[in-house]
Amino acid sequence: MAEDVTLGIDVGGTKILGLALGPSGDALAQVRMPTTVTTPGVHPAEGGRLIDDLAAVVEQLRASLSGDVTGVGVGAPGLVDSDGVLRFAPNLPGGAGLDIAGELSARLGVPVVVDNDATCATVGEWMQGAAVGADDALMVTLGTGIGGGIVAGGRVVRGAWGFAGEVGHMVVDPGGPPCPCGKRGCWERFASGSGLGRLAREAAHAGHLDHVVLLAGGDPESVRGEHVTTAAQADDAEALAVLAEWGRWLALGLSNLALVLDTAVIVVGGGLLDAVALVFDSVRRSFAEMLEGAAFRPEVAIVPAVLGERAGAIGAALVARRGGRDRLVAS
Amino acid sequence: MAEDVTLGIDVGGTKILGLALGPSGDALAQVRMPTTVTTPGVHPAEGGRLIDDLAAVVEQLRASLSGDVTGVGVGAPGLVDSDGVLRFAPNLPGGAGLDIAGELSARLGVPVVVDNDATCATVGEWMQGAAVGADDALMVTLGTGIGGGIVAGGRVVRGAWGFAGEVGHMVVDPGGPPCPCGKRGCWERFASGSGLGRLAREAAHAGHLDHVVLLAGGDPESVRGEHVTTAAQADDAEALAVLAEWGRWLALGLSNLALVLDTAVIVVGGGLLDAVALVFDSVRRSFAEMLEGAAFRPEVAIVPAVLGERAGAIGAALVARRGGRDRLVAS
Repeated sequence: MAEDVTLGIDVGGTKILGLALGPSGDALAQVRMPTTVTTPGVHPAEGGRLIDDLAAVVEQLRASLSGDVTGVGVGAPGLVDSDGVLRFAPNLPGGAGLDIAGELSARLGVPVVVDNDATCATVGEWMQGAAVGADDALMVTLGTGIGGGIVAGGRVVRGAWGFAGEVGHMVVDPGGPPCPCGKRGCWERFASGSGLGRLAREAAHAGHLDHVVLLAGGDPESVRGEHVTTAAQADDAEALAVLAEWGRWLALGLSNLALVLDTAVIVVGGGLLDAVALVFDSVRRSFAEMLEGAAFRPEVAIVPAVLGERAGAIGAALVARRGGRDRLVAS
Repeated sequence: MAEDVTLGIDVGGTKILGLALGPSGDALAQVRMPTTVTTPGVHPAEGGRLIDDLAAVVEQLRASLSGDVTGVGVGAPGLVDSDGVLRFAPNLPGGAGLDIAGELSARLGVPVVVDNDATCATVGEWMQGAAVGADDALMVTLGTGIGGGIVAGGRVVRGAWGFAGEVGHMVVDPGGPPCPCGKRGCWERFASGSGLGRLAREAAHAGHLDHVVLLAGGDPESVRGEHVTTAAQADDAEALAVLAEWGRWLALGLSNLALVLDTAVIVVGGGLLDAVALVFDSVRRSFAEMLEGAAFRPEVAIVPAVLGERAGAIGAALVARRGGRDRLVAS
């Protein structure tokens, strides 16, 4: 074939990002559109709109390419089983139950592989980003929640039903705040973007964070994670203190995972990377303090993701190029 | 060769158990002796006594065998690196820093492989016990602490430096009781044998557990996990209530691990298996309640270990037979 092009599409709660990956792994084209199927309570049958959206992204990419598209990879938020069915998708309610792989490949006439979005981002960073060459790596994506992906012994860890890497709902404080998942004290209640907002609102209600509250329009209840980041970037001491507390929760979960998996490289990505960048040193210090037997282990590298918002789409394309989820081994 | 015999030795804090595994995986001989190198504060150089103990076990086993010994596997409590050096051993202070593999193989003239004890037990149960045939399995050993071992995608997860599976020091309550490791609220502060004792002493001081306190000689401070188990086996309602609380902590950590790894089979073993047996149903119920998206996943099997105290030694022999720690893939 003249040019072996694979498409990768990352489905988020608010936007869909698609790109075309050329034979040497370079991005040839990119398309972005809003996600239309995010209304809570939407019946799974309505998920057909997600298929429409995905097909539209593929057609737009195809129109800008000269070569043949040999495969499509899709990263979706939630539990995606080994057959490419989205089983559980709290952040994409209309998509739950949808056989994305089956429906999209029937529509497009090309093979479609579907995978968890954070796992795709992990594959992207592992094969082309911050974790290249690491046989034991972990990626966490910090956004509204926390996603994750695991590489162990040079292979992507899939788990029995393809659901491995759901790190955000690890309970780190059973008496902690309630989580939409039904439990209390899940890690993402503390160390995600919404966790940062919650920690900040608590501080604001306690009379701190004047500058942050001002940024939020004057109401402590309106404080969000991004207000803290903005104030901290301007060296606001109180905002930096809240970020440091948030960073300790981040380090706690990372040290739990590193203990269980003995990870050499941890890649931190997602929309909150700007916030992490402000406290990276203290996160690394807290992590080392919390890791059992740290003095007897080589140092774990905790590094920022480098592919940005494209990580998931690049990873999805790489999964498709490798011929499926179970083929992801170190090359 | 006439008979390919491999030896497996499990080093515990109080005893050493060795056995000889015949070509078909059957145990041909067994030796048990007390561990002499367990005095806290002993200098690593004193660890030579551990090598003496291990060599004595090997000689006793050899004396009872007709065939040639082709390899020796040793399971040791602590962080054992990929070269077989015991890096960190809070429960075997005299052994820390010891190059067990190098020293023992020089002494014996046969290849020696050293591995973490809980990982050896995992290998034993995976290859000859409760998790045979499972490509994604987890074992936890409940004793004074909690050990663990992970099988993912048909391979034993080793981690970057051979330390994977240290599940006991996963923090599940950062405001919880202090742990000898330096942190607070490690899982093994709650769900191990010492965790059961602690929960029971708290209940006893609060005026509960009359029967258990009597078993302990009348002093609430003397209550240990085994007193709770004994009373619960006699249907004491208060003891069963403490066991149920303990079981919820067990389920919490297991659900964290199953989320991260998407495990199909969880094997529970170790000295506390008698206690778990009394609350297995409620542990399974709590686990299902705590597992995110449980309704959308196949049921995870939580099963008792079947190899008993021999699991670690059998697994150590199997690691040696396979030719080393990195060769452990599904056969």
